[in-house]
Amino acid sequence: MLTIHHLRIGRSIFTVWLLEELELEYELKEYYRNPETNRAPPELKQIHPLGKSPVIDDDGLVLSESGAIASYLLKKHDPQHKLSPASSDIANWAQYNQWLHYPEGSVFTPLLIQLLLLRSGVEAPLFDAYSGAELTLHLNHITAQLAANDYILGDQFSAADIGVCYMLSMAQSLDLLSNHSSLSDYVQRNKQRPAFLRALERGIE
Amino acid sequence: MLTIHHLRIGRSIFTVWLLEELELEYELKEYYRNPETNRAPPELKQIHPLGKSPVIDDDGLVLSESGAIASYLLKKHDPQHKLSPASSDIANWAQYNQWLHYPEGSVFTPLLIQLLLLRSGVEAPLFDAYSGAELTLHLNHITAQLAANDYILGDQFSAADIGVCYMLSMAQSLDLLSNHSSLSDYVQRNKQRPAFLRALERGIE
Repeated sequence: MLTIHHLRIGRSIFTVWLLEELELEYELKEYYRNPETNRAPPELKQIHPLGKSPVIDDDGLVLSESGAIASYLLKKHDPQHKLSPASSDIANWAQYNQWLHYPEGSVFTPLLIQLLLLRSGVEAPLFDAYSGAELTLHLNHITAQLAANDYILGDQFSAADIGVCYMLSMAQSLDLLSNHSSLSDYVQRNKQRPAFLRALERGIE
Repeated sequence: MLTIHHLRIGRSIFTVWLLEELELEYELKEYYRNPETNRAPPELKQIHPLGKSPVIDDDGLVLSESGAIASYLLKKHDPQHKLSPASSDIANWAQYNQWLHYPEGSVFTPLLIQLLLLRSGVEAPLFDAYSGAELTLHLNHITAQLAANDYILGDQFSAADIGVCYMLSMAQSLDLLSNHSSLSDYVQRNKQRPAFLRALERGIE
């Protein structure tokens, strides 16, 4: 049995989306944040010591980290490589893998700092300078990558789009995409996919 | 020709270490931070649009993201799987991959916030609470993983140790390991490896 431990509201809806793209059968267990602290409930620590989400449990194999979960699910359930290049196609696979690491590895930090700046209202010029410069860099980088293509790897959707779409959704919620219409269009294009809509039905309502 | 674009001082020394573990021949091109802004020099943007480091160029294939670079190098140069489980050993490979994503995906953000708090001296309780809670969680998690083992995956060194060791080195420089002697020992154990010492010779002096 494959189970996804899903914390509302958070990044795990994007892993539910991948499960739907792969048309897998799975159980979805929901958890809710503490409304005062906004932190995950302690029950999640019984699943994985970090107590975060997404976490999957596949017949006892418990995994965290969105990118690592994606690699595992694709290795096991996408033998025809519909959602990522085969590793034998090493140059394209390496580029895919770079885009798989990039969202959490490079884009999340300045986004979280921007979120904390807005929530706290604190004057912190060093934080402000860092997140401002980094977010300009990353939004321009993703814009350039999408200039000639509908998706990160070209004209076909891949699992790399899921992590990028999560970051851009977060940027959108921080009102950072108003001057980046191609990125808003990209988010909308992805979120109209039937698998994403099914994920919303399972994971939100 | 394999080239690593190496920014001093920064995380790319850890990729140089991996190149040395794999006993590869490579060219190392050095770059220096702007002493006033501490940012990378603009020349790095001519190599990769993000202008960051590490970046490798392997006969024209340009890759960023430490974890993705590691996966590429191991796929190409470690056919006997000395530094990571084979993907056919799917449960162990998945766990390895989780630990490969974990450093940049989960540990770097609170470390950077802690660094910026110290550098700026700003009073920012929300940032402080976030980085304090997250760093306690992660240092305890890594401590538990290393409780019975010398290395992240067991008694053998793997490529997963490199990213974890980078994070713990950063934690050490922020004076966060004084109550975590097993983590200091782990960093020392890794940094005594001949490949790490060769990396220092190539990348620092």
